[in-house]
Amino acid sequence: MGVDIGGTKIATGLVDLNCNLLAKVEVPTLAKEASEIILGQVYKSIDETIKEGHCTREDISGIGVIAPGPLNRYTGVIFHSPNIPAWRNLPLPQLLTEHYRLPAILENDANAAGLAEALFGAAVGYKYVLYVTVSTGIGTGIIIEGEIYHGRTGMAAEGGHLTINFQGPRCGCERRGCIEAYAAGPALARRAKEKMIASSHPSSKILDYTDGDIEKITPRIIARAAEEGDDFSRELIRETGEYLGIWLGGMVNVLEPDIIVIGGGVSLIGEALFNSIRETMPNYSINPFAQEIHIVPAKLQTDVGILGAAALHMPRPEIKRRT
Amino acid sequence: MGVDIGGTKIATGLVDLNCNLLAKVEVPTLAKEASEIILGQVYKSIDETIKEGHCTREDISGIGVIAPGPLNRYTGVIFHSPNIPAWRNLPLPQLLTEHYRLPAILENDANAAGLAEALFGAAVGYKYVLYVTVSTGIGTGIIIEGEIYHGRTGMAAEGGHLTINFQGPRCGCERRGCIEAYAAGPALARRAKEKMIASSHPSSKILDYTDGDIEKITPRIIARAAEEGDDFSRELIRETGEYLGIWLGGMVNVLEPDIIVIGGGVSLIGEALFNSIRETMPNYSINPFAQEIHIVPAKLQTDVGILGAAALHMPRPEIKRRT
Repeated sequence: MGVDIGGTKIATGLVDLNCNLLAKVEVPTLAKEASEIILGQVYKSIDETIKEGHCTREDISGIGVIAPGPLNRYTGVIFHSPNIPAWRNLPLPQLLTEHYRLPAILENDANAAGLAEALFGAAVGYKYVLYVTVSTGIGTGIIIEGEIYHGRTGMAAEGGHLTINFQGPRCGCERRGCIEAYAAGPALARRAKEKMIASSHPSSKILDYTDGDIEKITPRIIARAAEEGDDFSRELIRETGEYLGIWLGGMVNVLEPDIIVIGGGVSLIGEALFNSIRETMPNYSINPFAQEIHIVPAKLQTDVGILGAAALHMPRPEIKRRT
Repeated sequence: MGVDIGGTKIATGLVDLNCNLLAKVEVPTLAKEASEIILGQVYKSIDETIKEGHCTREDISGIGVIAPGPLNRYTGVIFHSPNIPAWRNLPLPQLLTEHYRLPAILENDANAAGLAEALFGAAVGYKYVLYVTVSTGIGTGIIIEGEIYHGRTGMAAEGGHLTINFQGPRCGCERRGCIEAYAAGPALARRAKEKMIASSHPSSKILDYTDGDIEKITPRIIARAAEEGDDFSRELIRETGEYLGIWLGGMVNVLEPDIIVIGGGVSLIGEALFNSIRETMPNYSINPFAQEIHIVPAKLQTDVGILGAAALHMPRPEIKRRT
């Protein structure tokens, strides 16, 4: 049972051992309500998913939960959740275990998604996997021999807040120059806006799609304009890949993975972005074999939250090492 | 048997299972000579160390070698060595094993030193250890549960070339803003010089120790002047700690170690440097518990090369986790 809890929606899914989604329930999160009410939503969603999957509690090996906000993966406590204010110091897996008499594991989204990619997705068979999700923020997961690398309290792999310029643009985390502040979706839109303002008569298809309003620029619009040959958008995407390549060069220096899997909304821009990343990364790594490290799109994009959460309970296959 | 091969000297030492150095031989490297001649130096040094230690080959469990330059830790090949030009694609451990009929392991210096700190030094009992050496360059080693983290080809943990500003000062590796270009010994001297030039009438004790010649500034002189209350030098050290803290904040984001052990010549500046690092690091990490991560001086400074090399063959104790 995979449970993906966000500030907007709660999605639960029944997943088999081959990572097939057998049943799924999605409800809008009553994010402003009391803790018990949201917890009730989670229980109800799980119950309905079990029913929809035509199975019983006994058929389920465990419940995997991904939730936002700082959490202690070892103790299973959500400290606080920016989008669900009522959840403070909530021992969610413990409550689920008491309720369902099933083992429950709490994990952050990028770690779980990385595990799913390593077990079932683009990184099957690789020993050292770096997973990256580029969407509203940038998250990372480090998977070593089929296990998530957690560090001291389970908060390792916050690579999205690795700075590439400590004097760079301000990030949502208040620090400067985090890759998230250069290359996540909002940063891409912000850079587009800034470039529009800087050049007083910009010629770009982006303006057609936003009725001339630069506040309406989104990564999707930039991607669409680029596909139609818009030079302004193409340059923005090339530049985004360059920032990501600079950052990944540093990640490679530290981690030297076999493969880097990139998912998330911004990654859907596709080959133009990936080619720019692949071209830049080796130049920004001291590793003489950086060129050999695969940089590939994620395979599991739809429902990756549920799949990642469910993967937490999957048996780990022996890694027959690919390089 | 620990063998520390550098461009200047070859140091060999016999080390017992408690990390005591029982015998040591040091000779200047004939770095410009042919490969066989330098190899002959290594054999002769090992033979003399065995003799000096009053033991026989049978008493030795293995030979650990640390050598400079890109090397493949898995295959045991030194690709090329900047300081020993004749060594190209040299399978050094294989040659040592054939010669002595003893297992031999090749490792880079920071990884081996980190292992020695984790097994016998400042990081005994910690599960996730980040070792840093700040001297002519900056090297790092990642030790997880008493084992070196190697990555794909054994070239992981090149943290000294993680950039903190991709538009920053040029590094020896040709890239920009690597922490090595901000905080290693030569960078410290360079920054001192630049600050001297920028302020036309600098008042600093540094000038007394260099006969007024800014080309003669060394980290040791800066440390000495700071100890004597020289404000110019104190500010330089504080700033160096700040750069290291910014960088370590990023390393903590990715690795979340239990402890950070800092060795190398620049670390001998002491508490003034460490306090600046400790003050800065948590502000540059998104990890809410960064403040709890220990930042301590290395314990094994003298002969750390030999000790690290020997540690490669030491039994790994069970980690009774400290935090």
